[in-house]
Amino acid sequence: MPIEILSRFSFTARQPADVLLQFAAAQIPEQRVLDSRTHLSQAHHVANIPAQDDIGERVWLHLSGRFEVSYSATVEVNRLLADIPTLAKLEPHELPAEAVQYLFDSRYCPAERFQPFVEGEFGNLSGGSRIWAMHDWIAEHLSYSPGSSNPKTTALDTFVERRGICRDYTHLLVTLARASAIPARYCSVYAPGVEPPDFHAVAEVFLADPTTPGGGAWHIVDATGMADPASAVKIGVGRDAADVSFMTAFGEVDFDDKMVAVSKVP
Amino acid sequence: MPIEILSRFSFTARQPADVLLQFAAAQIPEQRVLDSRTHLSQAHHVANIPAQDDIGERVWLHLSGRFEVSYSATVEVNRLLADIPTLAKLEPHELPAEAVQYLFDSRYCPAERFQPFVEGEFGNLSGGSRIWAMHDWIAEHLSYSPGSSNPKTTALDTFVERRGICRDYTHLLVTLARASAIPARYCSVYAPGVEPPDFHAVAEVFLADPTTPGGGAWHIVDATGMADPASAVKIGVGRDAADVSFMTAFGEVDFDDKMVAVSKVP
Amino acid sequence: MPIEILSRFSFTARQPADVLLQFAAAQIPEQRVLDSRTHLSQAHHVANIPAQDDIGERVWLHLSGRFEVSYSATVEVNRLLADIPTLAKLEPHELPAEAVQYLFDSRYCPAERFQPFVEGEFGNLSGGSRIWAMHDWIAEHLSYSPGSSNPKTTALDTFVERRGICRDYTHLLVTLARASAIPARYCSVYAPGVEPPDFHAVAEVFLADPTTPGGGAWHIVDATGMADPASAVKIGVGRDAADVSFMTAFGEVDFDDKMVAVSKVP
Amino acid sequence: MPIEILSRFSFTARQPADVLLQFAAAQIPEQRVLDSRTHLSQAHHVANIPAQDDIGERVWLHLSGRFEVSYSATVEVNRLLADIPTLAKLEPHELPAEAVQYLFDSRYCPAERFQPFVEGEFGNLSGGSRIWAMHDWIAEHLSYSPGSSNPKTTALDTFVERRGICRDYTHLLVTLARASAIPARYCSVYAPGVEPPDFHAVAEVFLADPTTPGGGAWHIVDATGMADPASAVKIGVGRDAADVSFMTAFGEVDFDDKMVAVSKVP
Repeated sequence: MPIEILSRFSFTARQPADVLLQFAAAQIPEQRVLDSRTHLSQAHHVANIPAQDDIGERVWLHLSGRFEVSYSATVEVNRLLADIPTLAKLEPHELPAEAVQYLFDSRYCPAERFQPFVEGEFGNLSGGSRIWAMHDWIAEHLSYSPGSSNPKTTALDTFVERRGICRDYTHLLVTLARASAIPARYCSVYAPGVEPPDFHAVAEVFLADPTTPGGGAWHIVDATGMADPASAVKIGVGRDAADVSFMTAFGEVDFDDKMVAVSKVP
Repeated sequence: MPIEILSRFSFTARQPADVLLQFAAAQIPEQRVLDSRTHLSQAHHVANIPAQDDIGERVWLHLSGRFEVSYSATVEVNRLLADIPTLAKLEPHELPAEAVQYLFDSRYCPAERFQPFVEGEFGNLSGGSRIWAMHDWIAEHLSYSPGSSNPKTTALDTFVERRGICRDYTHLLVTLARASAIPARYCSVYAPGVEPPDFHAVAEVFLADPTTPGGGAWHIVDATGMADPASAVKIGVGRDAADVSFMTAFGEVDFDDKMVAVSKVP
Repeated sequence: MPIEILSRFSFTARQPADVLLQFAAAQIPEQRVLDSRTHLSQAHHVANIPAQDDIGERVWLHLSGRFEVSYSATVEVNRLLADIPTLAKLEPHELPAEAVQYLFDSRYCPAERFQPFVEGEFGNLSGGSRIWAMHDWIAEHLSYSPGSSNPKTTALDTFVERRGICRDYTHLLVTLARASAIPARYCSVYAPGVEPPDFHAVAEVFLADPTTPGGGAWHIVDATGMADPASAVKIGVGRDAADVSFMTAFGEVDFDDKMVAVSKVP
Repeated sequence: MPIEILSRFSFTARQPADVLLQFAAAQIPEQRVLDSRTHLSQAHHVANIPAQDDIGERVWLHLSGRFEVSYSATVEVNRLLADIPTLAKLEPHELPAEAVQYLFDSRYCPAERFQPFVEGEFGNLSGGSRIWAMHDWIAEHLSYSPGSSNPKTTALDTFVERRGICRDYTHLLVTLARASAIPARYCSVYAPGVEPPDFHAVAEVFLADPTTPGGGAWHIVDATGMADPASAVKIGVGRDAADVSFMTAFGEVDFDDKMVAVSKVP
């Protein structure tokens, strides 16, 4: 069942500025972009570069004045869907090079400080069952509350203040996973069912690949419960929200508006 | 003039534990490892994996009991040496994919918050001259003070408390560079002249490559002034110290001792 | 020349709630309240209690529904006005009991961490000339920027981010003074000339009393430069903004609006 | 049953310095100092001043060289002992002036941020039963671990890292109480049974006075469970540890050693 995506946003550079965008569905094996259409305003410079882990693309712009991005796509998702609680852990020494950076602390995910907490709370669980218990803990202890957090909010703030949005839920899950030596990354997605409709964020954890003995794979876990991994369309990944923004401005840029609509094609 | 390196450290795992090491001179074009010798104690599992940006290697261990690492190498450094203050800036939109992640905030380098400061203090400078002014600012305002910081210390702490060690000096320079939209990374090195002798850290900033019109390159800047870029031997790079430790333990591991000696071969 | 004050604000308690107010000109020797008029909506409970250091009063309310406060007063200020840069320091051991608590760190003023900075920057100055150099440093390095800070912003944040409002300017001055072992407190005032007109905050530092050999006194210093100590009318004092809010709600209370007007009577 | 106290500590001022001490049992109605003996080294200046809330005394010293404090006392405690879980809450609007400052955030107790947590965890309880549930929560979730915290550690750090010493346990209990609009202060005590023997810290919360209808009183709660309120001898109180240190140095002072012994006289 294909997913239909529509997103549109615009901003204005009062003076010539550089802007980095990342808004398109990634062209990767687990999701096939059946068709897509991108319309960008005129800019002095446009360059596409591969994004982190070669998942998706970023667009560099040099521009002035008002700029509009309009994107639509139809995407078929056919990723491996695992039953998270049944997945085995990989021991740290079994982790491949690509997963290692996702063990470490990042800007919004100070994982090391959470080691006593995860040992105390989830110490008798491992692998997928531990991740799922973290998912449940977050669902039970946090309340989804738009406006309660801001771009500076870290997983530590969220853990204390017990509320936030998808970005904060994901940061906390990523943090608790890393504190358990389970690689975890931040994944920006388009997903049907997100309320209110917007760019969405989910965690990806690196656990056993049930189809490959000894192998590992990234598995989506949405701590907010709003997105179904079977229909989430990946835009890009990173260590945390610092790495995966749909728009990063270098210079004085005013954000104007944004619209995102995602639905399953019947 | 080759550099001679000797390093040795040991630790004890009270129970079976995983440990990640990164201690060897990286085999990269800018430095030729003339010879090297590594001696490791017996472990249940040893696996080498490429490190971040394919600079150097990490070693995964699974082990118990006491473990010793002994490493010696002779390395010839022949990297491009630029006069930092004369280097031109690359505009953000000119940056290649590999440099982009080093624009973003990381665990110990919350760069975004420093934008008003760098604008106020270095606003009339750009590129290499701006980096060099930051280097001078740090040299003037910080005091080198072993024991004044700890592994949790961030660039923000260092900026306020005005003291630290090579790790802290590097974090602050990396932070100020990123706050100016200049990519900067943390580089672990062996360098003669470091006092007391130890693993050392320097910043690398991405500025124009003076040998390639339109191109960019990483340039070493040591905010502590102790290491000469002409004789620093790179071990590995990362966003900040969270990524480049000579030893990261997963499990209960006691660190025993460490010895580092680096000298120029006459 | 008397000061004329008019202030009015209102809020709504959706359910029965407790609210603490502090909005009236303090009746203290240094300022004479020539006349004043307070109008409060009906509440289930109203009780006046002395405020911190017996400067001004707080009002406890228990209420539900919409509540309005309307206050007007004419006040004559005749406080001792000293030339700050000429004031001598009191050594810590000369400080009276009442000043001691204002040497310590408070919620928004983590002074201890600033000791190396104040030593490096102001180490050759003491007493009033040191305070005045701090005042000048703040004026030079901060920009007044409504909306750039929020109620969680600490002096450390302000020091790094280099911008804020009167609350933030005052927190930073208080912090730097305490880091120099000079008692400093946060003072809420009505002052003509504040732009935009609002409740205003200034610092008070405890230095020599020029009229009493060996004695000490509190002296107003406005880091923003907007208020003249000769015409500032004190409402209350505290360790920092956590202690002196014109309104603190315990329960679900929505703030509705606020108006403040202060002028010199010609 | 009287309590016998012995404490001794020493320090050295390399240059003339000011030092503030607070080490003696407070002379207050709830505890009678049967006899006491203080021996101080020679100093250039010694002055006693009343401490916070007039509970106990502080001593200002101006000195150079080595300084020793030796204190012994026998104290009879006869304070009101209440069964905490049965105590009623006072509504905020019923609080007297002296308790109000202990509702607010302080340096190590950022209470406001914990409001959603206390509502979620203890929302169905009030007054003494709520405080006791907090006491139990802390006992269950924290581990007592000397060396795991430092003088910069806040209640927020402790809440995340789940370990600490009496100072940290007390900060967390004070924070959770204030987040529930229950006044709470930090109390430094001598108490038998503290292991290892040292100056100890407990919380005091302001709840109903069971002997006075409508009245309130301070009640000791030790989150570590080591001290018995019936035998704890108060030295002083404050908003948090920033206010109540047995020694605060202004200048370069090296701490030498310390010994504390407290026992019940048989």
